[in-house]
Amino acid sequence: MQALGTHLLVELHKCNPALLNDAIKVEQLMVAAANTAGATIVDTHFHQFNPIGVSGMVIITESHLAIHTWPEFEYAAVDIFTCGDTLKPKQAAQQLIEAFECQQPSLYEVKRGCVPLVGTYSHGQPQELQMVP
Amino acid sequence: MQALGTHLLVELHKCNPALLNDAIKVEQLMVAAANTAGATIVDTHFHQFNPIGVSGMVIITESHLAIHTWPEFEYAAVDIFTCGDTLKPKQAAQQLIEAFECQQPSLYEVKRGCVPLVGTYSHGQPQELQMVP
Repeated sequence: MQALGTHLLVELHKCNPALLNDAIKVEQLMVAAANTAGATIVDTHFHQFNPIGVSGMVIITESHLAIHTWPEFEYAAVDIFTCGDTLKPKQAAQQLIEAFECQQPSLYEVKRGCVPLVGTYSHGQPQELQMVP
Repeated sequence: MQALGTHLLVELHKCNPALLNDAIKVEQLMVAAANTAGATIVDTHFHQFNPIGVSGMVIITESHLAIHTWPEFEYAAVDIFTCGDTLKPKQAAQQLIEAFECQQPSLYEVKRGCVPLVGTYSHGQPQELQMVP
């Protein structure tokens, strides 16, 4: 069995709340993290909530990064969902932990789409695949 | 402790592959699911990959829905991330299971942002919150 996707659920507690409430800064950091992961960015969408909080998505060829922040709790939920073997999602997560000045991070890795296969696959970059008989 | 967010990781194996490779149809189904959950849609972004596969995001006031499909494996990874107590993410998941004619679904619920608090919170709809001493 191989997983088609690697999904990191990153819990960022005890962050710098000013950073978490700055949509422009949050977008900069998430784009930088996507680049660190080696992802190809397709589009970004970030939204500043009134009175507080930011939500944002970085759509990448290899899936997505997402963030939702609760500055009043000094907390952000980050998702880094990638496919293929070449990306470095954990490096992206580590960069975000440092960038948000997070004092209490947790990282959970979930393998998505476990299927019997030989070879590797990345969205938009199909390679030779063979189903295991 | 209460969770700020509810994150459903929905693994859809053995789906109808024709549906999974139709970006317009995938977007329709994801938007319908967001509406069933009771979410307020902010924006959508869907992408048809060449030669195969669809990725899409539905950005909602209450967080996001995401999908990545691998029609060649009859598989889709769906995320339904919501905050607040009023949404119905599991009903949205069930609707997608049926819409994609999924024969082997799995659903994992992850509580995101567990913090000590009294009251409820939804992005853009702050209510009276009190940190537990």
